[in-house]
Amino acid sequence: MHAIILSIGDELALGQTVDTNSAWLAGRLAGLGIPTLKHETVADDLPALVETLKQAADRADLVLVSGGLGPTEDDLTRDALAQAMGVPLVEDADALAALLGFFDGRGYAMPARNRVQALYPDGGATLPNARGTAPGLRVTLGRATVYVTPGVPHEMKHMFDAAIEPELVAASARDGGVRDAILTRKVNTFGIGESDAAERLGGLMSRDRNPKVGTTVARGYCSIRIRSEFAGVEEAGRALEATTRDVEARLGPLVFGHDDATLAGDLVARLRDAGQTVATAESCTGGLLGGMIVDVPGSSAVYPGGWVTYSNALKQSQLGVPATLLDAHGAVSAPVVAAMAAGARERAGATCAVSISGVAGPDGGTDDKPVGTVWFGLATPAGVTTHHARLVGGRAAVRDRAAKCALQMLRFTVMGEDLKQIRWLNRG
Amino acid sequence: MHAIILSIGDELALGQTVDTNSAWLAGRLAGLGIPTLKHETVADDLPALVETLKQAADRADLVLVSGGLGPTEDDLTRDALAQAMGVPLVEDADALAALLGFFDGRGYAMPARNRVQALYPDGGATLPNARGTAPGLRVTLGRATVYVTPGVPHEMKHMFDAAIEPELVAASARDGGVRDAILTRKVNTFGIGESDAAERLGGLMSRDRNPKVGTTVARGYCSIRIRSEFAGVEEAGRALEATTRDVEARLGPLVFGHDDATLAGDLVARLRDAGQTVATAESCTGGLLGGMIVDVPGSSAVYPGGWVTYSNALKQSQLGVPATLLDAHGAVSAPVVAAMAAGARERAGATCAVSISGVAGPDGGTDDKPVGTVWFGLATPAGVTTHHARLVGGRAAVRDRAAKCALQMLRFTVMGEDLKQIRWLNRG
Repeated sequence: MHAIILSIGDELALGQTVDTNSAWLAGRLAGLGIPTLKHETVADDLPALVETLKQAADRADLVLVSGGLGPTEDDLTRDALAQAMGVPLVEDADALAALLGFFDGRGYAMPARNRVQALYPDGGATLPNARGTAPGLRVTLGRATVYVTPGVPHEMKHMFDAAIEPELVAASARDGGVRDAILTRKVNTFGIGESDAAERLGGLMSRDRNPKVGTTVARGYCSIRIRSEFAGVEEAGRALEATTRDVEARLGPLVFGHDDATLAGDLVARLRDAGQTVATAESCTGGLLGGMIVDVPGSSAVYPGGWVTYSNALKQSQLGVPATLLDAHGAVSAPVVAAMAAGARERAGATCAVSISGVAGPDGGTDDKPVGTVWFGLATPAGVTTHHARLVGGRAAVRDRAAKCALQMLRFTVMGEDLKQIRWLNRG
Repeated sequence: MHAIILSIGDELALGQTVDTNSAWLAGRLAGLGIPTLKHETVADDLPALVETLKQAADRADLVLVSGGLGPTEDDLTRDALAQAMGVPLVEDADALAALLGFFDGRGYAMPARNRVQALYPDGGATLPNARGTAPGLRVTLGRATVYVTPGVPHEMKHMFDAAIEPELVAASARDGGVRDAILTRKVNTFGIGESDAAERLGGLMSRDRNPKVGTTVARGYCSIRIRSEFAGVEEAGRALEATTRDVEARLGPLVFGHDDATLAGDLVARLRDAGQTVATAESCTGGLLGGMIVDVPGSSAVYPGGWVTYSNALKQSQLGVPATLLDAHGAVSAPVVAAMAAGARERAGATCAVSISGVAGPDGGTDDKPVGTVWFGLATPAGVTTHHARLVGGRAAVRDRAAKCALQMLRFTVMGEDLKQIRWLNRG
């Protein structure tokens, strides 16, 4: 079985709303072992809808559609489906009774225009909607089974779980039920680029391998996506684990977790296990780093707090950075981040402290210190070291990557790993 | 001109990542008066990509593609485009030089596999990427112009603005350009809920009105979406302006800007105009508030910095909060936030200071101070006031809304507006 997912609506086609339904449905289908050929988003336009439905039914044996079942004139999915099938719309007495009951339960009469929601293409059926007014639809179009759900995400999800998934599972059992299970995992890293990662992964990334291994980059993280597709879910799981271990062995401590795990979350857990605390001294990141740490529940055990010393005056008065260092080297320099980190560590009484001072842009860059230049200080019981990086992107990206670099530096410090493995960092 | 938007990637087709690029691009095209026929999301699969590109070029005269330009084996957009056109890939010497320069500027050699990123289908051209390694592409396929950008959202957006939009505007001028113009605008507010906003907007929200007015809520902001559709762009523009003024009159100072304008950006501009500065003292937000302010270019003129006093010890040692207040009232209390704000204002030498201390959850709530309870202190030349709110949502949402409340409080203070208009805030 192969699926095509359609989402319908002017607000989606025009870009006023981001379609999250299709990704959710694709993820659920993958879990059932049903690959999705493509997603398509189309506007509320009758001829375009009819054409899209016909083409989808031609290419896939399962078509999932969300949206366009409302009571208004721009809800056209019902009509488009009937036209594509060449049948009239007929009224479902039970669905009409459910609609009347829905409004009655809320103490008012059903508006006349809602009656169209009880219609379905002749030969098909309605699916009950426990969360709203619009029933879903199930029809056969050509060789494909087509399901239509409302576009409202929580109605769509509930209808998929309650009515559609059980039918897909039953259909698969009738098929003889031999279908591939697809399990996926993301292995998250920070501190390495996509091509470096690919070089280390080598043959693991070859296109015909199963599990398949690919990379994606988002917000400075390089994630290794693993997709394991086998006849049985146990076999898919075993292969997923084996490939995960292989990927992790090649990327070492740059890996901070799987799927939704965060860099800060792993740092906080390691600090807690080690009985250590950290303090922060931020300039260009302005509190982003502290914000990422405090985002982790329970971070108060390892993070007393920090300073946002954006002005030179606060660097002096709050962290004891000597004015002579600021004058001689500027705020973005090794001596200044060293003094910031040492001052923060001492004042907070923390095991370690990290400091950040950089040129985030868009202005303020010089030949010597172009936009993206960031200095980091790291104060530990063993002393103070300084590091620098040249980060790319706009102001927000530079600040975000700088804060994440500092998190990874702290994490490597707790782990006793060499900071040189963080690709963008140079000792200075 | 009609457009089709394609997004490429296994992670999108499988539902591991939600595609936000297509909506953004559709919105920008709508602003240029170019209707989008559909969006399509396809996996990293060469034959499927070739087929999809051909079909899109058959139906639309403009095809925008994002994704699949990376350096790895599963990045296939470049090859698919060349196959669809029936031409070989050739190397762009300038693009190669830019790639080498990109890596050189970061102090290391270009990995060999990145070289493919300088290739383009013969007869086409590359588009420079100011934010990353992958150049974009422009080619002619059948009667369509096809643009390809990287999938990374900030690279895609920058490339669209810098290279693609100017070409589309020029092409439209050559066309003579009579078409229905759709102009949209978002009027952004903070401090009011969707139903309150709807009540104030009243008849402006009726469905058959043009410009059409709707509301959406995202990350605590309530945005009023206006969509103006008229035969001429001037007429659409005039109607959009008139409706914008009407919306703004009904929502008053809660409106902080349009479209991509941020609350912090408007605050920084107002502080600069007034010659004022602010300092921050954060507990549960952990630096988020400072991070939002520093996110604004030029914020150094109005923001000396702040403190992340997450532990009580730092509240005492760094901001001078008396231990007796912490003992008697707890860290989440009016007397403590008052002392934090006063201490921060004095130590930073700022015109005003704001402080935040709250129960972000998931643990730590009590009957008296349930999760979501947040206290704010505001120190100004006129004295210190305290305010509290009961915010809803998980840990991240409570912290995010708390930081935004503080921004809106500071903004209202600079504007001389009564803080009571911020719906969620109570004086205490």
